Amino acid sequence: MIEDSQPPATPQLAELYSDFEASMLVPLWTQIADLMPASPASCARAHLWRWSSLLPLAERAGDLVPVGRGGERRAVALANPGLGGQPFATPTLWAAVQYLMPGEVAPEHRHTQHAFRFVIEGEGVWTLVNGDPVAMRRGDFLPQAGWNWHSHHNATTTPMAWLDGLDIPFVHATESGFFEFGPEDVDTTATPARSRSERLWGHPGLVPVSAAVSVPSTPLFVYRWERTDAALDDQLRLEDERHPGVLEKGHAAVRFSNPSTGGDVLPTIRAEFHRLRPDATTRTRREVGSSVWQVFDGRGEIRVGDEPWTVERGDLFVVPSWQPLTIGAESRLDLFRFSDTPIFERLHQHRVLVEGEPA
Amino acid sequence: MIEDSQPPATPQLAELYSDFEASMLVPLWTQIADLMPASPASCARAHLWRWSSLLPLAERAGDLVPVGRGGERRAVALANPGLGGQPFATPTLWAAVQYLMPGEVAPEHRHTQHAFRFVIEGEGVWTLVNGDPVAMRRGDFLPQAGWNWHSHHNATTTPMAWLDGLDIPFVHATESGFFEFGPEDVDTTATPARSRSERLWGHPGLVPVSAAVSVPSTPLFVYRWERTDAALDDQLRLEDERHPGVLEKGHAAVRFSNPSTGGDVLPTIRAEFHRLRPDATTRTRREVGSSVWQVFDGRGEIRVGDEPWTVERGDLFVVPSWQPLTIGAESRLDLFRFSDTPIFERLHQHRVLVEGEPA
Amino acid sequence: MIEDSQPPATPQLAELYSDFEASMLVPLWTQIADLMPASPASCARAHLWRWSSLLPLAERAGDLVPVGRGGERRAVALANPGLGGQPFATPTLWAAVQYLMPGEVAPEHRHTQHAFRFVIEGEGVWTLVNGDPVAMRRGDFLPQAGWNWHSHHNATTTPMAWLDGLDIPFVHATESGFFEFGPEDVDTTATPARSRSERLWGHPGLVPVSAAVSVPSTPLFVYRWERTDAALDDQLRLEDERHPGVLEKGHAAVRFSNPSTGGDVLPTIRAEFHRLRPDATTRTRREVGSSVWQVFDGRGEIRVGDEPWTVERGDLFVVPSWQPLTIGAESRLDLFRFSDTPIFERLHQHRVLVEGEPA
Amino acid sequence: MIEDSQPPATPQLAELYSDFEASMLVPLWTQIADLMPASPASCARAHLWRWSSLLPLAERAGDLVPVGRGGERRAVALANPGLGGQPFATPTLWAAVQYLMPGEVAPEHRHTQHAFRFVIEGEGVWTLVNGDPVAMRRGDFLPQAGWNWHSHHNATTTPMAWLDGLDIPFVHATESGFFEFGPEDVDTTATPARSRSERLWGHPGLVPVSAAVSVPSTPLFVYRWERTDAALDDQLRLEDERHPGVLEKGHAAVRFSNPSTGGDVLPTIRAEFHRLRPDATTRTRREVGSSVWQVFDGRGEIRVGDEPWTVERGDLFVVPSWQPLTIGAESRLDLFRFSDTPIFERLHQHRVLVEGEPA
Repeated sequence: MIEDSQPPATPQLAELYSDFEASMLVPLWTQIADLMPASPASCARAHLWRWSSLLPLAERAGDLVPVGRGGERRAVALANPGLGGQPFATPTLWAAVQYLMPGEVAPEHRHTQHAFRFVIEGEGVWTLVNGDPVAMRRGDFLPQAGWNWHSHHNATTTPMAWLDGLDIPFVHATESGFFEFGPEDVDTTATPARSRSERLWGHPGLVPVSAAVSVPSTPLFVYRWERTDAALDDQLRLEDERHPGVLEKGHAAVRFSNPSTGGDVLPTIRAEFHRLRPDATTRTRREVGSSVWQVFDGRGEIRVGDEPWTVERGDLFVVPSWQPLTIGAESRLDLFRFSDTPIFERLHQHRVLVEGEPA
Repeated sequence: MIEDSQPPATPQLAELYSDFEASMLVPLWTQIADLMPASPASCARAHLWRWSSLLPLAERAGDLVPVGRGGERRAVALANPGLGGQPFATPTLWAAVQYLMPGEVAPEHRHTQHAFRFVIEGEGVWTLVNGDPVAMRRGDFLPQAGWNWHSHHNATTTPMAWLDGLDIPFVHATESGFFEFGPEDVDTTATPARSRSERLWGHPGLVPVSAAVSVPSTPLFVYRWERTDAALDDQLRLEDERHPGVLEKGHAAVRFSNPSTGGDVLPTIRAEFHRLRPDATTRTRREVGSSVWQVFDGRGEIRVGDEPWTVERGDLFVVPSWQPLTIGAESRLDLFRFSDTPIFERLHQHRVLVEGEPA
Repeated sequence: MIEDSQPPATPQLAELYSDFEASMLVPLWTQIADLMPASPASCARAHLWRWSSLLPLAERAGDLVPVGRGGERRAVALANPGLGGQPFATPTLWAAVQYLMPGEVAPEHRHTQHAFRFVIEGEGVWTLVNGDPVAMRRGDFLPQAGWNWHSHHNATTTPMAWLDGLDIPFVHATESGFFEFGPEDVDTTATPARSRSERLWGHPGLVPVSAAVSVPSTPLFVYRWERTDAALDDQLRLEDERHPGVLEKGHAAVRFSNPSTGGDVLPTIRAEFHRLRPDATTRTRREVGSSVWQVFDGRGEIRVGDEPWTVERGDLFVVPSWQPLTIGAESRLDLFRFSDTPIFERLHQHRVLVEGEPA
Repeated sequence: MIEDSQPPATPQLAELYSDFEASMLVPLWTQIADLMPASPASCARAHLWRWSSLLPLAERAGDLVPVGRGGERRAVALANPGLGGQPFATPTLWAAVQYLMPGEVAPEHRHTQHAFRFVIEGEGVWTLVNGDPVAMRRGDFLPQAGWNWHSHHNATTTPMAWLDGLDIPFVHATESGFFEFGPEDVDTTATPARSRSERLWGHPGLVPVSAAVSVPSTPLFVYRWERTDAALDDQLRLEDERHPGVLEKGHAAVRFSNPSTGGDVLPTIRAEFHRLRPDATTRTRREVGSSVWQVFDGRGEIRVGDEPWTVERGDLFVVPSWQPLTIGAESRLDLFRFSDTPIFERLHQHRVLVEGEPA
């Protein structure tokens, strides 16, 4: 339609376009179709990264690349094939595998970018957040708000890998980030089973009176797998007993939440855990904004737009904005998900379209 | 000062005052000192009710007064000596001992008044909230938002007593309440250990995606003693390790919170649990609004204004608006507290004055 | 029903009741019908005060009662016939006629009670709010948040009367108010046509960048009649042109709003202006909470519950909680209204039932 | 520092990097300095577009380029020299000169991108918003929330140019926009002096009771120059009288606000008007996020980072994120400004640093 609607190509028009360019101007009428599509037309592409390929690459980096000040982290980021080679999983989200060898320290720094860790396997690393040591174990989710000092150290004799998620691409696109270096070494190598944040904020429905105010990012630095697992189980058992709770038939889901607000753990990132019964299938869903999923356990079939993949433990995939997603479980299927939804909800730009529901 | 500032008593003035009265009018200048004191001058009085007196009276009511439709509940309410014999613990709060005999049912009803139960001793009663059976055991706190259907039944062979708290006086004063009867019998006598609300909302920092929206009253119908106890212990241990957490020296405190908002469990009622180490003393504190406290365990000395009391397990006392409160522990002292603070916070009328802190 | 449901009167029961009383206890089962009615059963009564009676009484007070420190204001308050002679128009609202003679000063004070002035007739008094002189003229509405210093002085040679509205009864019932005296004389007798607050906040949709934060009470100290009149006219003309805007057929209404939040002018008080076309009638409406209305101009028929009144300029009437209100206009009818609605909205207790709409 | 911190270049490392690339992976340690600078390092550049150059180019487009379905608007966008030729004034903001010839119609459409018009000179075009005709005149600001139907038509015999501002780049970067075509012709050519939105929402501090709820974008479709001018004048006069109001010495500023919330007119765009006295100079200010300014009247000197420009009526300039801005007035200087600040405030990422104030 744009072509039809363009003015006839004349020497005067060519001269005008040339003068526009010289004056740092661009006409809307040649750009509008790309700029303002009928619905989100993502540059980002649906893509799958296999854990079986990722982990060996991270291990090779473990051998070849030291960790220390300057490089800061031994993290290898997903680079969406539609985003020109940038280390961005989606236009707003960063997802990387971080790898730490026995005895290593990832030095302290802080940044306004919001971050989390999710542990797909292994244990033995402690993340220090403002001096509070937080153990990391399979299934744990560790959100960490921007501008907190943090470092990691591996207190064991085996390497450990985990998923890092951040809003780096969003902060980069909006040119809004700050960063500072801290000391190169950790100030404590204590390895307590429970962090101080858990002891203050990890009791359900109980907030310390000394700190009972709303803060925009969660004061709870880790959400333990045992609790997530139990919550998902409870939803499925309620479904067995014909009570409400599951998101849809055979599909339990919990959202990690900030206990001081009940809302998302981080101002720009939503995180959830999903469990499907064997053979359950989700309704197809489109949503403004993008998400990254990691298979925690089980085996299933994913369809994003026309892309069908069979996925297994550790596999990571990306769902770009407004692309239809369907998940089918072969075995019981557990998935971790994070997305940029809070950005759109806070700016009143969010839309969801679920198969069989009114728009 | 008012006397000095009054106009001279003349026959004309007397006639004017008489004409005011006939016209349903009252002058401000004769009333202002009472109406607008320099700081809250409560009619309500500091008062103590001993559990050792309350419980036998409730037991006698158990023998003499049936429970059923019409009377609705075998509840005996604290009547503040400053409030003219009305069954009001404070101008805004209701506090009563409810008593249920083996096999008895308190019939279903609902009302817009917000309510909670707090269990000082015993077990064996289930509260049904919208058909969800919730077990009640020593130390449990059961908030219950207005307009939920609810009933109680005693499934054991021993009587049980507990504390009911409501905002009845506030709703009465503002003429804003609604009430409806439900069926006389309970629709299930199931006695599950965990309620459905706990299974959906009782996992720390996890909210069901199927219900992840803010609601003004808590969707979690019970806060179990084991969790409260652990949270208080954790705060005191953090203090031992010289980390933040306690409210003040030797004084741990948690607030019961709505997991969908992080705020108070009920729009008009705040509820908290406090633990003092042996020999600890709180700073003296004044606050707009009133509160009711119940000693859960231990022995201590309470001072409200000029009233000093030595208190023990089960004892209930009232702190009227703006009266100074100090608590000293003889043994380790555990206290449950509820107050009308959310009313004043939401209306921007709250003030606190703590000894040694700036006003 | 309560009678039927009461336990049989026995000596033991009488003794129990007597022991309750001695212990400052009251049973629920004898009180519940009064305490928890099916819908709000107001003690307050629908009542009308005629301006033609009120004003002469205020004038007589002008002759007999001086204004000054101690009495503070020559204000005569409406005392609802259902509220035991207290100077309360409703359980939450105060409404009084204030009267100031030529050259008089009502001395400076401040209180946490929220207040407003509404001018039914006359002009010539300036209210000083934190040193900012605000002229008062027929039709003007002057909200004044709690804890602002304020005084009034009459700069002319004629007396002036106006309506004072406050939340005194609510603050009294909740025992939450503070009060302080200021200087006895005004610090400026300047009589500018526009106050500083109007110059900063009186431009539609424009907020000063120097003060662009939300504050709970309006920073605009006066809403001029010319603006209110024009807004009401605009709504009726839009109706003539078949566009939306009026509240219902022939009934225009504006709410006075806090330009820093878009919400109510005061945390506890809503204020509105209503205009009915000749012969228009409102739908019958019930609402949780009470309101006071003053006829600004025109003639109409009011029905509150079973009370029908023909009303004229200056007449004041009270609508208790949940009582049905219908207004019919004989001529064009202008009415000022204030209510306690923000209290109930903020506490999630508000309900409205409009004839012909679903509950 | 990054170079120093990189691992030694070995064949194994080269092979690892090659395998990363093949697997759509990018290491953090080679990218972190660019991705996470110490403070926002904007790609966007400070840049000035002269009105004296822009307008003739728009006029030439008026002769050569028709307006109609497909191209939609004869708008010429500022293309920031640091953003690779894209029609983006900053990474988040679109700014374009739109030009409409006598009798022309820019056809109806709607999009979720938020928009506004600001009129630097001329008059005679009406913007139809959901069927409500809004006149456009010099100095007027017309915000228009996403998803409203809108078109423009020139009802006069002279061309008209104005500034269009939108959040197109932000919506493009986050892949979140929707767009729909409406009819090609306008449904009314009425040219009322006041729009219906002004008649409902243009009265200061008054909201229609029929629509008194918070909406995320302003229901007022135009803010008239006369009001803005008067508000700025009032602030400077208050300064003359030594009262608060101005933003800083000699510098008045108003923010266009949503009367239903008191907040920004649009969820993603802040708009303000600034007036400096002759010879006044602003303090230097850095801010997260970008802004576009247009000189409305007068002559001044702008400094953004190291760029100094003398500016005049109609000139447009861009201030990238975190770049220091200073404005000096030669004559009285009036400036319109819009920015992406609401995005950062709502996501808790906003920071400001003003010369002489604590960080």
